[in-house]
Amino acid sequence: MRPLTVDSLNPAILNVQYAVRGELAIKAEEHRVNLQENGQASGLPFDRVISTNIGNPQQKGLDQPPITFVRQVAALMEWPDLRRLAPDVFPKDVIARATELYEEIGSVGAYSHSQGVPLIRKSVANFIAERDGYPSNPAHIFLTGGASYGVSLLISMLISTPYKTGILIPIPQYPLYTATLAQHSGAALPYHLDEASDWSTAIGEIEAALETAAKDGISPKGLVIINPGNPTGALLDEHTQEKVVRLCEKHSLVLLADEVYQTNLHRAETHPFTSFKKVVRKLDSPIPLVSFHSISKGVSGECGRRGGYFECVNISDEVIAMMYKMVSVGLCPPLAGQIGVDCMVRPPKVGDESYPLWKEETDTIHKALASRSGLMAERLNKLPGVSCVDSPGALYLYPKIELSDKAIAAAKEAGKEPDAFYALALLDATGICVVPGSGFGQKEGEYHYRLTCLCPGVDEYVGKLEKFHEEFSKKY
Amino acid sequence: MRPLTVDSLNPAILNVQYAVRGELAIKAEEHRVNLQENGQASGLPFDRVISTNIGNPQQKGLDQPPITFVRQVAALMEWPDLRRLAPDVFPKDVIARATELYEEIGSVGAYSHSQGVPLIRKSVANFIAERDGYPSNPAHIFLTGGASYGVSLLISMLISTPYKTGILIPIPQYPLYTATLAQHSGAALPYHLDEASDWSTAIGEIEAALETAAKDGISPKGLVIINPGNPTGALLDEHTQEKVVRLCEKHSLVLLADEVYQTNLHRAETHPFTSFKKVVRKLDSPIPLVSFHSISKGVSGECGRRGGYFECVNISDEVIAMMYKMVSVGLCPPLAGQIGVDCMVRPPKVGDESYPLWKEETDTIHKALASRSGLMAERLNKLPGVSCVDSPGALYLYPKIELSDKAIAAAKEAGKEPDAFYALALLDATGICVVPGSGFGQKEGEYHYRLTCLCPGVDEYVGKLEKFHEEFSKKY
Repeated sequence: MRPLTVDSLNPAILNVQYAVRGELAIKAEEHRVNLQENGQASGLPFDRVISTNIGNPQQKGLDQPPITFVRQVAALMEWPDLRRLAPDVFPKDVIARATELYEEIGSVGAYSHSQGVPLIRKSVANFIAERDGYPSNPAHIFLTGGASYGVSLLISMLISTPYKTGILIPIPQYPLYTATLAQHSGAALPYHLDEASDWSTAIGEIEAALETAAKDGISPKGLVIINPGNPTGALLDEHTQEKVVRLCEKHSLVLLADEVYQTNLHRAETHPFTSFKKVVRKLDSPIPLVSFHSISKGVSGECGRRGGYFECVNISDEVIAMMYKMVSVGLCPPLAGQIGVDCMVRPPKVGDESYPLWKEETDTIHKALASRSGLMAERLNKLPGVSCVDSPGALYLYPKIELSDKAIAAAKEAGKEPDAFYALALLDATGICVVPGSGFGQKEGEYHYRLTCLCPGVDEYVGKLEKFHEEFSKKY
Repeated sequence: MRPLTVDSLNPAILNVQYAVRGELAIKAEEHRVNLQENGQASGLPFDRVISTNIGNPQQKGLDQPPITFVRQVAALMEWPDLRRLAPDVFPKDVIARATELYEEIGSVGAYSHSQGVPLIRKSVANFIAERDGYPSNPAHIFLTGGASYGVSLLISMLISTPYKTGILIPIPQYPLYTATLAQHSGAALPYHLDEASDWSTAIGEIEAALETAAKDGISPKGLVIINPGNPTGALLDEHTQEKVVRLCEKHSLVLLADEVYQTNLHRAETHPFTSFKKVVRKLDSPIPLVSFHSISKGVSGECGRRGGYFECVNISDEVIAMMYKMVSVGLCPPLAGQIGVDCMVRPPKVGDESYPLWKEETDTIHKALASRSGLMAERLNKLPGVSCVDSPGALYLYPKIELSDKAIAAAKEAGKEPDAFYALALLDATGICVVPGSGFGQKEGEYHYRLTCLCPGVDEYVGKLEKFHEEFSKKY
C-alpha cells in the first residue's frame, strides 16, 4: 500500500497561500498555549499574545462586544420557548423580530432555501435600495456563509481555462483572492495601488496589467476592487469608480466589488462610501457586477456566525441558475449567519425599544475604531524608517518599514522574507502578532505589515511596537 | 462589452448535477408559493406540498422537534446574560455546559481555530474513542460546516489530474459525490450495490469498477462507502467492512467513509453500526481513512446550523497541514454548528437534570423513524410493480418501480427520464415531492425514487402515493 503523500495531491492545492492564518498566526497560537499552560515559566518575555493579525473584533482579549439586539434575536430563534418563559428580559421589538423570522423560517435547525431565506433576501434588497436609491431584486441576492464563500464561488465559476483565465487583483490584496485563484488554477493579474497617494486606485495601473496579461496569453475575466481597501483602508472616490466601470465595459470584465468594510468609515464626512451598484446604475452601465458584503466586519463583527451576501447586477438568469445549482450542492448557508444578516440590514429604528442601546453600542464601536486608527497612524509615522497612510476606512493599517541591508541578509540566512523576519522577531519579543506585507503583496524591495485597529490599550501596545522597532533597528 | 454567458463559465460547472434540490424541488417550491399566495384558487389538486425529497427533519410541515438540550445551550451561548437574567428557566447542566463552552470559546461572534474549537475537538475524540474502543487524536479532527463541506474539501484535494483521477462511488449514491467530482474534474468510478440482497456492497463489483478504470486510463485514488447507505439505508456487516479495508490496502485507496447516519438504526439489535475507524484499527491496517459525521442527521436533525466533522486516520502530518491551510482560507466553521457538534457527542448523562427530557425526545424520534420506515416499506411492497427494500438504517426508502413501455415513451416525448416523469406526475397530482432514481444512479432500464421517512401522517401520505400509483398505472 502506498501512503497518501503531499506530492500525490492536487498540485493546485500546494500553491495556495493564506498568510493571515499562516506561519505567524500558528506561532502566535503556540505562544498562547505556552503562556496558558506554563505562565511565567513559559520563558517568554511577554505575558499575553496580542492578535492584531486578523479582523476578528470579538475574539478573546479584544473588547468589541456583540450588538445586543443581534444576540437577543438569535437567542429567541435558538429557543423560541424563551418568548413564553422569560418574556420580560427581551425588548418588544426583539420579540416582534424573532416572531416574524420564526414564522417565516420555522426552526433554525432546518435547511433553508439554498440561496437564503426569502424574507431575509427581501430585507437585504430593501437595505441596498435605500442605500443606493436604485432598486434591488431579492432573486439576484445570495446569502452566504461569510463573504469569502461567495468570492470563492464566483472565482471557481469564472476560471474557464486553467492558468489561462485571469482575474485582476489589487496589490496589496486580501490573500483570499490569490488563495482562491491558486486553488482554482486561475491567473492572478496584479495591479498596484499607489501608496504615495494614500493607496489610491489608478486606472493606468489596471490597463498596464491588462497589457501584461495580453502578452502572457492570459484572458482577463474579472476585476477585483476592495473598497474600503484591505489591507490599505483606502476609499475610492466616485469619479475613480466611474472610470473603473468604464474600463470594465471596455474590456468586458466582471466587476467583483468586495465591499465588506462599507460601514467602517473613520472620516465619513470627507471620505464617504459609494457602492459600485450605485455607480453602475447611475451610469446605466451593462457591466456584470457582483458585490459582496458581510456581517463579520462593520460594527457587527459577527465573524463566527459565518454570514454575508452577494448581489448580482446585470447577470443573466441562466448564470444565476448556475450559481443556484452550485450553492444547492452545499445545501444552505448557516441559519445563524442569515439571522445576523437580517439584523445587520434591518437594525432597530428610532422609537423601537432597542434603539437607544443599539445606537450607543454602534456609536461606541465606530468611535473606538476611528480614534485608535488615527492614533496608531500618528505614532507609527513618528518612528524612524516607518511611514503609514492614515486610512479613512476598514479595520487595518499597513505601515511601510525600511529594513537595512543587514536585516535583509539576516532574513535571507533564516530563509524568511525580510518583512516576515521582522514580524517574527516582533512576535517573539512582544507577543504582538501582525501579518507581513509579503502575504498581501508589495512592490519589489518594499516591506510592510498589516495590523488591525481592534486592540484596546493602544498606548501600551503601540509602546511595545515602538520599543521593539528601536531595538530591531539598533540590532540590524 | 460582451455579456457574461453560461458558455463562458468554467465548463466543469456545467456538468454538476444535484437532483435533491433540482427540477422536482424547484417545482415543489413553486407549488408551495402558489398555495400560500392563492389558496384554493391555486388550481392545484392538493392543499399542501409534502417535501419528502430531502433529509431535513426540522423543516416546516414535518414534526421532528429539535432536542431541547442543544437549543438551550445554544441560546445561552448567543446571549450569555441570560444566565443572569433568567437563571431559573435553564437546567443546571445546561448552564454548566454553556459556561464551560463560553470560557473556552468566548464570543460565538469570533472566528475560532480554523480546524474547530480545540475543546470541542477533544469532545469529538472522546466520543470516537468511546464508540470504537480505540483512541482518537483531536489534532486529526476537523470540524466542518456540515459533512458536505468536508467531502468537498477531500475530493478537491485528491483529484490530482483532471479527468484522470478517479474516486469509486456506490450506485445508487448521494449526488453530493458526483456533483463534487464534476466540479473538481474528477472521474466518478461507479460500482453497483446489489438490490437483490438488500443493497449490499459486493467486493466483486468494486474490483470490476477498478478494472474498467484501468482500461480507461483512470487512476483510482479513493473509495466512497456510505454506511448506513443513502439512498439505500443498507448497513455493511463487519465482515464486508474488513474486505473493503483489505481492498483499499491492495489498491492503495483512500477510504472516504460517509457515516452521517450512524445513529439512524431502525433494528439495531440485528443491524448494528460499526465504524470503519474501528475496523481499520482492529485490522491494524495502514489505509488512509477519512470518516465523516454530521449533526444534520441522526436524531439531532440540526441541518440549518451547518455542523459536522471528519476524522483523519493514517494520514501524515504534512497532508493534515495542507488540509489546515485549505480550511484556514475559509476562516472557520460556523460556531453554531460547532456547538451543535459538542452537544451531539456529549449529550446529557444519567443523573443530569436534562437527561430525562433528552432521553424521552431522542427515544421518541428513533421510534417514529423506525416505525414509519417499516410501515412505508410494507405498504409500498404491496403495490403492483413496486418493490422496496425494508432498510435497517438512515432516513430513506428507495423503492423500485416498473414502468410500462407506454410510460417510458410518454417520458421520452416530454424530454424527461422515465422516473423523473413519474415523480413529476406524482408531485403535480398529490403535492408529494420525491427524488427520481436517475438523480442517484441505477442500472440501465431500472427506475426508482427516494423518499424520506420523516413525514408524519404516513397513512394519509402513503394513501396518496398508492392512489396516484394506481391511476398512473391505469393511464400508462
